[in-house]
Amino acid sequence: MSDVDKIMIERAAVVGCGVIGAAWASRMLLNGVDVAISDPSRSAEQILIEVLENAVAAYDDLGLPTDQRGSYRIADSVAEAVADVQFIQESAPERPDIKAAVLAEIEAGAPVDAIIGSSTSGIKPSVMQAEMTNPERLVVGHPFNPVYLLPVVEVVGGEHTTIENIRRAQGIYAGIGMKPIHVRVEIDAFVGDRLLEALWREALWLVNDGVATTKEIDDIITHGFGLRWAQMGLFETYRIAGGMGGMRHFLGQFGPTLDWPYSKLMDTPDYTPELVDKIASQSDDQSGAHSIRELERMRDQNLVGFLKVLEANQWGAGTTIADQRS
Amino acid sequence: MSDVDKIMIERAAVVGCGVIGAAWASRMLLNGVDVAISDPSRSAEQILIEVLENAVAAYDDLGLPTDQRGSYRIADSVAEAVADVQFIQESAPERPDIKAAVLAEIEAGAPVDAIIGSSTSGIKPSVMQAEMTNPERLVVGHPFNPVYLLPVVEVVGGEHTTIENIRRAQGIYAGIGMKPIHVRVEIDAFVGDRLLEALWREALWLVNDGVATTKEIDDIITHGFGLRWAQMGLFETYRIAGGMGGMRHFLGQFGPTLDWPYSKLMDTPDYTPELVDKIASQSDDQSGAHSIRELERMRDQNLVGFLKVLEANQWGAGTTIADQRS
Repeated sequence: MSDVDKIMIERAAVVGCGVIGAAWASRMLLNGVDVAISDPSRSAEQILIEVLENAVAAYDDLGLPTDQRGSYRIADSVAEAVADVQFIQESAPERPDIKAAVLAEIEAGAPVDAIIGSSTSGIKPSVMQAEMTNPERLVVGHPFNPVYLLPVVEVVGGEHTTIENIRRAQGIYAGIGMKPIHVRVEIDAFVGDRLLEALWREALWLVNDGVATTKEIDDIITHGFGLRWAQMGLFETYRIAGGMGGMRHFLGQFGPTLDWPYSKLMDTPDYTPELVDKIASQSDDQSGAHSIRELERMRDQNLVGFLKVLEANQWGAGTTIADQRS
Repeated sequence: MSDVDKIMIERAAVVGCGVIGAAWASRMLLNGVDVAISDPSRSAEQILIEVLENAVAAYDDLGLPTDQRGSYRIADSVAEAVADVQFIQESAPERPDIKAAVLAEIEAGAPVDAIIGSSTSGIKPSVMQAEMTNPERLVVGHPFNPVYLLPVVEVVGGEHTTIENIRRAQGIYAGIGMKPIHVRVEIDAFVGDRLLEALWREALWLVNDGVATTKEIDDIITHGFGLRWAQMGLFETYRIAGGMGGMRHFLGQFGPTLDWPYSKLMDTPDYTPELVDKIASQSDDQSGAHSIRELERMRDQNLVGFLKVLEANQWGAGTTIADQRS
């Protein structure tokens, strides 16, 4: 799945075991890793048990083995949890002061060469590593929930992180079945959450101004572009929209709309020929091996499959297959 | 699928037969409607034939009958195409002057009570109907491609559109198997494309600034939140992210991040208690019948199904099931 070499670990710690931490632990356990868990809440183990149950059911359905799991233990302290592990995933609450305190506890107890991944969705690694003793081994490893099923993890280094440790982190994530994407420029919110934030802001406006309800917005997503995005992203979808002219044609048609009135809500990058070249050539690298017709056929096959799944599960758009015929 | 009563039509016109128009025609034909097509390009029929072939293959795969199709004919003029139809779908190029000229041709030839739907993704219906003789029957009917598979169509009236005609348009769209969503407030780009534009602007920045390539952005979408959005939208997904506390808890946690530095790129609505109440109560209406645990199980079942589909089709994330286990 990933271009990086997998690194198989045996012992890891999950520090912070809410919904995200528990899903990390579940993924690790189902990949045979022993996991030590630290969380100040008494309900942490209960959350883990419930999330792990969901994860096991999903892996069973996928036909993946679930019988050779790692074991977990609830540690009495962060220091005890991280004492002899090769990797630590930190999923503490999203406040810089809490992250700093937890990272200090981790460093006080962990082997000096253990990689530390942070689940933060918005705090720059350079900010988090400012007070660390060994900041070179901290990366952001930002997942998408449910972590045990969605493969992507954004890997971001701070100014003190070594490239070697970024590669090690990528290898460790690949070793538990993930697709690590190295985000090479350190920006607030990284890539995925920047995209989500942009959509979220727009959705807030729409609800606030009474244009649509939460359900109507969700219906438009799930019965519209959401079905596209489970298989092709923004750029590959628009490449198809360009028809035989592909991405460059699409950019020619759609790009100028950036200057329309509704773009006033945000600055946009200057729509220069250089930017068009950059996007069109990256799109060629990405999808040029397939013709637009091939991409259309694959898209339709995938959509048909998704609609069948949704109908079989009696869920949302899936109830619509029969209705496609009047 | 839809809450509106279906209206079954027998004869429709498709004016403008590029990729979108051809997909409209395909959906109509496969729902037994006779379609007259008008397009100034000589390649229009060839595009229709190719798109219809894709649509037939998809409906076959879905187990829907494809043998009782309507018939199509290529008309010599707009006036001839629309002469005796009950419904016209206009998919001309996205320029206000072209739209105005095409609408004038449609009105010159069509029955006075025929409903006209426009595929425009950005032009307000009030703008388009300004010069019309019978503006009360114009609606925007904005689809998502592939129109023959994605059910959603945004229905938007202008200041001269009657509510009766909006209901008739919804009924006609429902009659060809679609899920019409009435966007009650007329704004530029409606709902879906506003959301897409927001994401697109952000993605342009990311490519422009070298943060990520088109492929990396697409990978983060398809292997991350894209898989979520084929089945649950933004709000239902975040309701789950709120855990047992649901939407209100999520809003408490995530809302304040709107004030973080990376929100500087756009104005945001004031994050008032009233807005929180509005969203939380709409979310209860939308999803309150299911517990968070039930929603999680449904989500996982759907995701498992999607991953199986993608693997069976040897496409993208679908190749990753085996990799979920190291």
